[in-house]
Amino acid sequence: MQKLIQLSTHNQNGLYDITREVEKIVTESKIRRGVVNVYAQGATAAIMIQENWDDSVQRDVITLLRKLIPSGVWEHDAQDNNGDAHLKAGIVGASETIPVTDGKMGLSTWQNIFFCEFDGPRNNRSILITVVSD
Amino acid sequence: MQKLIQLSTHNQNGLYDITREVEKIVTESKIRRGVVNVYAQGATAAIMIQENWDDSVQRDVITLLRKLIPSGVWEHDAQDNNGDAHLKAGIVGASETIPVTDGKMGLSTWQNIFFCEFDGPRNNRSILITVVSD
Amino acid sequence: MQKLIQLSTHNQNGLYDITREVEKIVTESKIRRGVVNVYAQGATAAIMIQENWDDSVQRDVITLLRKLIPSGVWEHDAQDNNGDAHLKAGIVGASETIPVTDGKMGLSTWQNIFFCEFDGPRNNRSILITVVSD
Repeated sequence: MQKLIQLSTHNQNGLYDITREVEKIVTESKIRRGVVNVYAQGATAAIMIQENWDDSVQRDVITLLRKLIPSGVWEHDAQDNNGDAHLKAGIVGASETIPVTDGKMGLSTWQNIFFCEFDGPRNNRSILITVVSD
Repeated sequence: MQKLIQLSTHNQNGLYDITREVEKIVTESKIRRGVVNVYAQGATAAIMIQENWDDSVQRDVITLLRKLIPSGVWEHDAQDNNGDAHLKAGIVGASETIPVTDGKMGLSTWQNIFFCEFDGPRNNRSILITVVSD
Repeated sequence: MQKLIQLSTHNQNGLYDITREVEKIVTESKIRRGVVNVYAQGATAAIMIQENWDDSVQRDVITLLRKLIPSGVWEHDAQDNNGDAHLKAGIVGASETIPVTDGKMGLSTWQNIFFCEFDGPRNNRSILITVVSD
């Protein structure tokens, strides 16, 4: 089973919790055991598993990446002025693969799935979800 | 096939080699070709493929992450005082997916699978292993 | 379906676009929907999804990793003098898992698959490709 999640982003950098949308697709798939692959289509975006107790960790992720990968100092900036966004996406990674167990995702209590926007705002970001039975 | 590995950790930051435990589950699955997903349940832990010739690389991983992601300077520290642990987990990533070939993992000679603890010690850490046939 | 890609690398650090080779294996597999796992066998190499409009982002990746993970300052250097290569490989990650949709990889326009060499040049690097149906 495969399905697309689409979303709009509102900031240049931001994390968007897509856990419920992914869980819904896992439920629809009726697959009881296996894995679900969550894939960000876009070379300036990524997927991260992270806590969602409040917004603080999400803001800390953006602060950390801005510090490690400052904007405006990359060779690629001469093309698109978004070299930092590509580097952040490459380091965080385009996908996460999560186990499916008893028909649900095997996330722990504090694990949520975030779409990471590094070159927003964008009207139409796509995340491809694939559920595979074991 | 899916199985849980459980372990105790003894330090705040530490890498634990779980290669043999994962290999045993792959053997039990009797799957000859496919992939095995190794997933750390916990938003302050991660999975890394790394060399295990001696302990030096494991200590270097901890040294590097401490340098890049210092403790005590994050917004989330006001909640749990473990902002750095969440960020380390997010950057390293909660899972690795490894090929299964001829009934064994397709690791190279020096590749081992490590559970990365960033907020220990913990009595009961869980890693969910899912073997999927191709 | 599983197949090995082999390549030679010519620099100590370098990114090599393997998108076409992976796409060919996906086509040969005749799998219409599922995922493809791309796995670098070698604890000083990695796989990254990244833009390939020109060489600038690839060079920026190397520049960034050199800055974050300098050479010559690691405990493991006493063994092999390649501590930085292991750390870069661990942070970037040994694999990427990409959706297969309508018989093709679900990459966006600017996403390409790169083998990342961090301890070259090497005559014979191996990347194991596994295509799994959903």
